[in-house]
Amino acid sequence: MHRVRVRVVEDALDANNTIARANRDDFDRFGVTVANLMGAPGAGKTALLERVLRELGGVRAGVLEGDVQGSLDADRLASLHVPVTQLQTSVGFGGECHLDANMVRSALPAIPLDEIDLLVIENVGNLVCPAEFRVGEDARVMVASVTEGEDKPLKYPLMFRACELVILNKVDLLPHVDFDVSKWSERLQTVHPGVAWMSMSARTGEGVDAFRDWLAALPERRLVEA
Amino acid sequence: MHRVRVRVVEDALDANNTIARANRDDFDRFGVTVANLMGAPGAGKTALLERVLRELGGVRAGVLEGDVQGSLDADRLASLHVPVTQLQTSVGFGGECHLDANMVRSALPAIPLDEIDLLVIENVGNLVCPAEFRVGEDARVMVASVTEGEDKPLKYPLMFRACELVILNKVDLLPHVDFDVSKWSERLQTVHPGVAWMSMSARTGEGVDAFRDWLAALPERRLVEA
Repeated sequence: MHRVRVRVVEDALDANNTIARANRDDFDRFGVTVANLMGAPGAGKTALLERVLRELGGVRAGVLEGDVQGSLDADRLASLHVPVTQLQTSVGFGGECHLDANMVRSALPAIPLDEIDLLVIENVGNLVCPAEFRVGEDARVMVASVTEGEDKPLKYPLMFRACELVILNKVDLLPHVDFDVSKWSERLQTVHPGVAWMSMSARTGEGVDAFRDWLAALPERRLVEA
Repeated sequence: MHRVRVRVVEDALDANNTIARANRDDFDRFGVTVANLMGAPGAGKTALLERVLRELGGVRAGVLEGDVQGSLDADRLASLHVPVTQLQTSVGFGGECHLDANMVRSALPAIPLDEIDLLVIENVGNLVCPAEFRVGEDARVMVASVTEGEDKPLKYPLMFRACELVILNKVDLLPHVDFDVSKWSERLQTVHPGVAWMSMSARTGEGVDAFRDWLAALPERRLVEA
């Protein structure tokens, strides 16, 4: 019985990877680079996008917004005049806690892939399951916040491992919370040795230029690597 | 095909409810009242327990700690000299993002039910899936934090609906974040009309007495209702 259950889970994972590759082929055909943005609820993913999306130089960006319900984040981003597509996961019982490759695939016809160079997929706020599902992206970015506590890399190691860049957000609150940045970064390096990370505040704008530059250079980096 | 898939999900939910009832029977047999504590990663669930568990008057408390990996929270709580049992969900692929009734059932033999009156189950940090699985508890408490943003009741309505008490934590940070408490509470009442809520700061201790009193009175309230 247990053996059968394991087999089903493996099949599901394989199906996800198969569809992720199909997504990737479509992104390649249109020359679109894709970043998957993950983090806990309230880490500041949308606020960061509000800061950086309008200043990407010549890079034409689009957003795919994953939410359990509603379109609050998509509405916020629509004012930036970048194409935003809303993907709701509430069709399942109670709502899915992550995006998978098939959900992203179902949204592809609604995304103007021929008009953009960079697609940012804002995942559902969650530190567990989004890390388990590739969706066809080139890079995964994880947003952590100083209000979440310095223990989070050790408590949710898969999420901190499953990304090419970690952003430490809300550093404007450092004087008001018990958070030791060097302790946090030590723990981050323990679970993901050598991973790039940068600190910033989406609220004050401090340090967000580094993330904007990283995003703006992503299409070029991808071409070099390919 | 779609029809079959839906049937499987319903079976899974029924199995969870069946096991939740079995858990509940065991809790009843030992006269143990159970609170299921939910919230996003970093909302302050463990910090709140550190504040209230040692001052519950004559009520003997125990804790079941649900985590994807590690025992950081259990280690923190063990210093309070209440019995703490650690339940790790990382046996699945990448780790389960919630506790279900069967996981709690598997932990029952390790919990000294004959020595406690109140069991607090600290769920995995997540605003989606924990709300979908009853585990045999008497009451569900949800911890939100002012750093998560005032939009969260609308974005994660099931979680805010699936509880008897909502705690708004980290109010010491209100002067430093953009968070309108009255706007948040309006949204909370929209998704869960009439739900009880209280605000506090686990960091400064402001307002935590109200939660301590609520927890300490839970076994008595349950007897009256039964």
